[in-house]
Amino acid sequence: VSLQRTIPAWQNTVMSTRAANTLNPIRAIVDHLKVKPNPELDVIPLSIGDPTVFGYLATSDEANEAVIKAVKSKKFNGYGPSAGLEMARSAVADYTSVEGAKYDTKDVVLTSGCSHALDLAFSVLANPHVDNVLIPRPYFSHYECLLKYNLINVKFYDLDAEKNWEADLDSIRREADDNTKAIIVNNPSNPCGSVFELDHLKDIMDTCEDLKLPVIADEIYADMVFPGSEFKPMAALNPNVPVITVGGLAKQYMIPGWRMGWILSHDNGSGILDNFRQGISDVSATLMGPNTLVQAALPDILKTSDTYHKEVLNKLAENASFTEERLSTVPGLKVIKPQGAMYNMIGVDVDAFNDTINSDADFYERLIEDQAVVVLPGQCFGMKNFIRIVLAPPKDVLSKAFDRIEDFCRKNLA
Amino acid sequence: VSLQRTIPAWQNTVMSTRAANTLNPIRAIVDHLKVKPNPELDVIPLSIGDPTVFGYLATSDEANEAVIKAVKSKKFNGYGPSAGLEMARSAVADYTSVEGAKYDTKDVVLTSGCSHALDLAFSVLANPHVDNVLIPRPYFSHYECLLKYNLINVKFYDLDAEKNWEADLDSIRREADDNTKAIIVNNPSNPCGSVFELDHLKDIMDTCEDLKLPVIADEIYADMVFPGSEFKPMAALNPNVPVITVGGLAKQYMIPGWRMGWILSHDNGSGILDNFRQGISDVSATLMGPNTLVQAALPDILKTSDTYHKEVLNKLAENASFTEERLSTVPGLKVIKPQGAMYNMIGVDVDAFNDTINSDADFYERLIEDQAVVVLPGQCFGMKNFIRIVLAPPKDVLSKAFDRIEDFCRKNLA
Ligand SMILES: Cc1ncc(COP(=O)(O)O)c(C=O)c1O
Ligand SMILES: Cc1ncc(COP(=O)(O)O)c(C=O)c1O
Repeated sequence: VSLQRTIPAWQNTVMSTRAANTLNPIRAIVDHLKVKPNPELDVIPLSIGDPTVFGYLATSDEANEAVIKAVKSKKFNGYGPSAGLEMARSAVADYTSVEGAKYDTKDVVLTSGCSHALDLAFSVLANPHVDNVLIPRPYFSHYECLLKYNLINVKFYDLDAEKNWEADLDSIRREADDNTKAIIVNNPSNPCGSVFELDHLKDIMDTCEDLKLPVIADEIYADMVFPGSEFKPMAALNPNVPVITVGGLAKQYMIPGWRMGWILSHDNGSGILDNFRQGISDVSATLMGPNTLVQAALPDILKTSDTYHKEVLNKLAENASFTEERLSTVPGLKVIKPQGAMYNMIGVDVDAFNDTINSDADFYERLIEDQAVVVLPGQCFGMKNFIRIVLAPPKDVLSKAFDRIEDFCRKNLA
Repeated sequence: VSLQRTIPAWQNTVMSTRAANTLNPIRAIVDHLKVKPNPELDVIPLSIGDPTVFGYLATSDEANEAVIKAVKSKKFNGYGPSAGLEMARSAVADYTSVEGAKYDTKDVVLTSGCSHALDLAFSVLANPHVDNVLIPRPYFSHYECLLKYNLINVKFYDLDAEKNWEADLDSIRREADDNTKAIIVNNPSNPCGSVFELDHLKDIMDTCEDLKLPVIADEIYADMVFPGSEFKPMAALNPNVPVITVGGLAKQYMIPGWRMGWILSHDNGSGILDNFRQGISDVSATLMGPNTLVQAALPDILKTSDTYHKEVLNKLAENASFTEERLSTVPGLKVIKPQGAMYNMIGVDVDAFNDTINSDADFYERLIEDQAVVVLPGQCFGMKNFIRIVLAPPKDVLSKAFDRIEDFCRKNLA
């Protein structure tokens, strides 16, 4: 036999470009932490975007029972269709339909979490190396990670801290180019906790209409808004702009580990998203659909009582108010009060601090070392001079953390 | 603001190359079926590789109870680490370790099914457009689908129907080139149902050692062998060849819908797979880990009693014997008796049939039209003049299907 292969010795495996690119900025920072938390104190992690970590926010009984029912029925152990079980897709279509954006089963594809929804959407919309997607800055760092994994270029538009994190429409106009396949709008926002006003959402949509720019609406925090704010699905706002909405159960139902997400396609019958719809259905075959037990439970989970959601939101809203109350008087910090989701971005005025704190990364490291409180530095989200905290802990934990943060700030004033 | 974007009107979304490539050959054929099943008969689907479809092979009580326990504990609703919960990875390491291939927790990454294990492994090992992976022919069609989704070139080596589907070692030597990043060996095999003899497995490994070719061992049908055959994990056979093993719960535990798979890295301490191990751990972050309830249940599921597995295997082995007994006397067909997994490839001698049957695709279509029995044509697996049937139905269903197949063959003889 004549050989085509010439390799004379074993080579160490080389990571593909894709794998080498797939850097989670949070992991990169957390893994390179050079300090140890103060060993005399218990560690308080205000860093982790998992609402269940503290046990204060918990899954509903409805959700637990729905999965147990699915297991006991013994009817959901086999493969489902890759795009999801008909009845589960249809339940999501009903649940997400609003005036101005009605969904049909065929508009819904179920995925293994919202991350997977984004991953599939990126892979269908954009070609490697050539195309780009426009994402907000500060941003959920996983956008960058998933785009790089898909070898898609990343461009940024700005959110304005001074205007409650509204999108800078000019920066959208400036950055979108002919290879921009979509813009991500994340409302309510991680990491900002902002909820856009209806008028601002419409302005974004008008800008996208001008630019003929399809929208990926990341609405994983849909309906998670505090009193005084209102959530509006992007898809319902401008009939001329095609909107791909990604969402899931993770945050609203406090079950991120169950990995249930979805992709909704809305083009108001124009057909602009026909290829996308077909493409998503095709690529959903790669993983053969999400967990069938959770799919079977979906219709019941989506019927979880309003009381449950209200209780959760009350806790988050109280924590947001408490954070403002407690931290806005701490020197060197500036609280931008969130209107939804479960995060708070807090400005760090580095000039107010001594020489050991010259950046949000310094603040983050020194706070761990000194007070065993873990936040995330803004650079995880592409935003200098901020830290992000999670609003999921019970008030006494937050209170203890804030005491320590205040101590830390006062000790380190310039 | 000066614009970079010039698009004057909405464009219909264009599917990315990746999405357009991601064609499941089975779907392509099944979707283009031009005939309807004979309406006077009940449809018998011998086509679907889902062991649970007929209810004859069912999930174990242990598995069901383990998930219910995980739900009731309320401890597994949050995110797990992307690579999997420590205790679940460690349970898989113990379960898969054998003499010659011992695994540590760090060698195991959990995935959303074995398909996802393959998808991640491909994405780490090979660069788009440049590299290739060598796969067997006939082949599990999802290999092609996943490789194309990852923009990786596909090369084939042959399995020899005359030698019980042994790999043609010369064709491996011929096809492997300097861009071949790995060879897939699928044992026990879908679609063949073959289980390689130990000597043959060693010969494959020797060939890979000569060629310095890392192996991806697809062992999703591990231990699913019939009396007289033995299953040997590839990783244990040649200490010099790095082996990436993919597997999962789908088939052995009859829970394909639960989506639990794994990737095992074994390089016998050489470090050849160090970058791969790191890469897999990095890219596992893309989907944030598989369903945590099933992860939590994994240790208990893997302790399912031997009695359960024996019963399942008895049923499959009986069906294999019955298939041989019943179809080997049918004119125009040639049964190659399987030694494991849950499939049987049956040769179709098109010359023995009349003008309406000139290919396996014709046989497949006409059989549906005439007898409402659905098999899969060999072309779904890159193999002409064969059909594949699934051995998962109860005997009476198989028997009825075989009566119809015999009828059909006799009616259509040349
Ligand atoms: C804005 C945003 N989108 C998507 C996700 C991913 O959600 P999932 O856990 O369903 O993959 C998250 C999770 O933190 C998020 O914050
Ligand atoms: C050979 C082979 N590998 C992998 C898989 C995929 O398994 P999973 O359902 O865990 O993704 C299958 C499923 O049919 C298979 O036959």
